[in-house]
Amino acid sequence: MKFLAEIEILPKKGLLDPQGKAVTHSMQSIGLNNVVEVCVGRFITLEIDADDETTAYEAADTASKKLLANLIMESYKIRMNKL
Amino acid sequence: MKFLAEIEILPKKGLLDPQGKAVTHSMQSIGLNNVVEVCVGRFITLEIDADDETTAYEAADTASKKLLANLIMESYKIRMNKL
Repeated sequence: MKFLAEIEILPKKGLLDPQGKAVTHSMQSIGLNNVVEVCVGRFITLEIDADDETTAYEAADTASKKLLANLIMESYKIRMNKL
Repeated sequence: MKFLAEIEILPKKGLLDPQGKAVTHSMQSIGLNNVVEVCVGRFITLEIDADDETTAYEAADTASKKLLANLIMESYKIRMNKL
């Protein structure tokens, strides 16, 4: 079976997010004064071949921990979908 | 009221995704042979002050179109949450 793991990676709360700060300022300049805070992270999708969702989730979790996210500065969230 | 817009930006299907290709190869080297395809995009959250969800959604949509996504090469999806 094929699964699609959608992984959202964001800088941890309280840590510096210079990209987010810069984009927040840019919002004012295009007239969007109601956007008060922006966080910029990464979005990664993995297509995984696995017998069941648990196995697929474990692959996505290992990939996030070992390769995709920097756990010192970032946190991640995984959503699984069946393809 | 405060809303949190979560915006997922991915390279359009069929367009080059060199980061995704590179990460797909790296998966093999950490033993995750069941990960067959990787796409790398951006994940951006916006905290928006607005009277209702429609207004907040419109701000997020304008921000995506004008500032966050490159519509020639990328597509985006917005999820709204009430804070």
